[in-house]
Amino acid sequence: MIESERQKNDAVGHLSRRACWAGGQSLATMLMAKSLAQPELVSLAAAFIDGETLPVEPTRSALDVIWSNPQKAKAALQYGTTIGYLPLRRILLERMLQSDGQTSRQTGLSVDQVIITAGSNSALHLLGDTILNPGDIVLCGAPTYFVLLGTLANLGARAVGVDMDEEGMVPESVEQCLDYFEQNSELDRVKAIYVTSYFDNPTGVTLSADRRRRLVEIAKRRSKQTKIRIIEDTAYRELRYWGDDIPSMRSFDKEGDTVAIAGSFSKSFSPGIRVGWIVLPRDLVGPVLTQKGNIDFGSPNFSQHLMCSVLEEGLFDKHLETIRAQYAKKLDAMVEAVEESLDPIGGVRWIRPDGGLYLWLSVPGHLDASHGGRLFDRAVEEGVLYVPGDHCYPAEYRNIPKNTLRLSFGVPPCEEIRCGIAALGRALKQVH
Amino acid sequence: MIESERQKNDAVGHLSRRACWAGGQSLATMLMAKSLAQPELVSLAAAFIDGETLPVEPTRSALDVIWSNPQKAKAALQYGTTIGYLPLRRILLERMLQSDGQTSRQTGLSVDQVIITAGSNSALHLLGDTILNPGDIVLCGAPTYFVLLGTLANLGARAVGVDMDEEGMVPESVEQCLDYFEQNSELDRVKAIYVTSYFDNPTGVTLSADRRRRLVEIAKRRSKQTKIRIIEDTAYRELRYWGDDIPSMRSFDKEGDTVAIAGSFSKSFSPGIRVGWIVLPRDLVGPVLTQKGNIDFGSPNFSQHLMCSVLEEGLFDKHLETIRAQYAKKLDAMVEAVEESLDPIGGVRWIRPDGGLYLWLSVPGHLDASHGGRLFDRAVEEGVLYVPGDHCYPAEYRNIPKNTLRLSFGVPPCEEIRCGIAALGRALKQVH
Repeated sequence: MIESERQKNDAVGHLSRRACWAGGQSLATMLMAKSLAQPELVSLAAAFIDGETLPVEPTRSALDVIWSNPQKAKAALQYGTTIGYLPLRRILLERMLQSDGQTSRQTGLSVDQVIITAGSNSALHLLGDTILNPGDIVLCGAPTYFVLLGTLANLGARAVGVDMDEEGMVPESVEQCLDYFEQNSELDRVKAIYVTSYFDNPTGVTLSADRRRRLVEIAKRRSKQTKIRIIEDTAYRELRYWGDDIPSMRSFDKEGDTVAIAGSFSKSFSPGIRVGWIVLPRDLVGPVLTQKGNIDFGSPNFSQHLMCSVLEEGLFDKHLETIRAQYAKKLDAMVEAVEESLDPIGGVRWIRPDGGLYLWLSVPGHLDASHGGRLFDRAVEEGVLYVPGDHCYPAEYRNIPKNTLRLSFGVPPCEEIRCGIAALGRALKQVH
Repeated sequence: MIESERQKNDAVGHLSRRACWAGGQSLATMLMAKSLAQPELVSLAAAFIDGETLPVEPTRSALDVIWSNPQKAKAALQYGTTIGYLPLRRILLERMLQSDGQTSRQTGLSVDQVIITAGSNSALHLLGDTILNPGDIVLCGAPTYFVLLGTLANLGARAVGVDMDEEGMVPESVEQCLDYFEQNSELDRVKAIYVTSYFDNPTGVTLSADRRRRLVEIAKRRSKQTKIRIIEDTAYRELRYWGDDIPSMRSFDKEGDTVAIAGSFSKSFSPGIRVGWIVLPRDLVGPVLTQKGNIDFGSPNFSQHLMCSVLEEGLFDKHLETIRAQYAKKLDAMVEAVEESLDPIGGVRWIRPDGGLYLWLSVPGHLDASHGGRLFDRAVEEGVLYVPGDHCYPAEYRNIPKNTLRLSFGVPPCEEIRCGIAALGRALKQVH
């Protein structure tokens, strides 16, 4: 938001500045209105997970285990602590270290650095609220997770875009940004670099191992008066359908003072139970917990006991196998349909992801895929809804393209995915 | 916090101003450390509810109802909306109107004004974050709910104390405060008056019907450039053991533009499930929802479906009967013990509540009941822990007394309550 707008909004006396900075949820509202008005639309827009894959049986089993012991049930119904349920935090730390091929002795990480939140969004807000003042800068991919852009706007922070390619965030672009801010004496306002390191929303891209190391090195080297943190969002890490998992950015943070890593069971198990977490550099733990005490006074304890039981009983890993197989089929269906219906049109470019829920696509530069543009309107007429890619760009980016689309394959069945892509193909041909 | 301290803290470069303003949770930490060091201590400090009364069977029944229908179970495991689960919001609105002897036609209230949160604390934070800028003023009882004081400090707001007596907040004291701010040209910084209208934490007092009407009238009459809202916290409304329920402050807000009323199932059912709500004046709904979208992206849906099932199946009202009977016995036990062990000492004053979880007590003015004072140390030696009352006073109050105590009867069984009060009696005699 530019300064004059900010001042104008500040004049609205009944609301806080923060409330004025927050932009509202126009994209979600618009997409929902379209769906309601035309229920037969295939939505390749919603970032929901597939209702068919929701873990009804595993959750019942986990609840049975808790309810088989009245003391356990009471513990789940009582207040928890602000930091969260210790056995769950232990499991999360162990699992993360195991995935990264590390031990807690190597890293010096302790369970005191693991904080449970109600979904990873609240972890991101909480960390932002703890380190960002109005006017502070967060470097984000261009494009990036658009919900985070709302959160940053709400905090009065500046979201500045850096280039992305098929290997994820481009280190050279980060360096250029930092050079620019250094020349403008604003380097001490750069507080964080936000990266979705696995199967990014919206690009579907996984940050390459080499870039993980380099980005962590850059954050450390360029930290002067103010520490530049990396906020690593791993919400989609478990949704890998092909290839091997790779170590997190955090695993390259030898001193443990740079990377805060957030995760969530919302995509990998259930968004309704809504358990997320964040593992923090040691110096941020106290301040974040104080904020958390004041903001939510602790996340729901029942949800935490439930997820802990799911993990302890081996129900999570079993469920993951099921959903990986199902999403892999859907991703295949989408890729095949794109190859069949869109590739022949010419000028269509896209990246095949190995996991996650999204496929990112660009159409020839002269086409307008944004809301209100010809392609979007035609696509809706043909029966398909997508997220216009321009919504995913930070406000501060030199050139926000209007020819990009985010397609989600999470919710619709394979047959609908094919229909949706075919409809998009027809729309594209009409505006080409 | 005074201005020089604020500036000093702002110099801590890695943290946001908010994080610096938040004072930390020293009271809870101190009390917990005492309990851990001396496990046989009777805690009349903890504001937990009684573990024995936690609704293990009602929750199981409500879960069974959900799990008997896979579509219901899936709906509970999927994402919810930011505003919360519609059937639950409908029930909450109906119940509130019924308790207040009103209809939605009379009030013009609609279900769109009911927002579900994860506990009422997050509702209070959310509203504060939406209407308060740093330096804005909230009038609170002196004493008041001390967790709210942390939340207000975190938001950079000023908590200003107004007098309390056995009928609750004193309207004349509110008027005096407003006069003072008007004379200092700060009236437009007064954004809210916070009142726990039933069985207040910490005083146990219920605001009298006449004062409800008068406080609402004052807020409306004194609103000039900025609207002065009343934030009515009804977390303990259901915990009435004697006498009849009285209408909320909201029921006196004919225009529906002044009172925001928050409630919670944390005390009346289960703090672990953690469902709270807030009913807002119409103009605040949009801004609060935008904030909520950015802060937590919606409260846990599973918890909401669970509480809705508890209500729909009539399990809540049945459970209330049980816990009311149990807490009534405990309150009786505490009152009898106070009459027996403390009243004879002389100079001890207290208010008998009709509900809630707290009894507020003052000892002769020359005695120091604060942390580090002689009474507190002696009490711990004798085997009882209480909340020093001075922690419950807003920073801006002309004269914070050190001779007050908050005693909770929620957690310990009757026998322990008697032992605890007897121990307090011995300690008092020693320092008298």
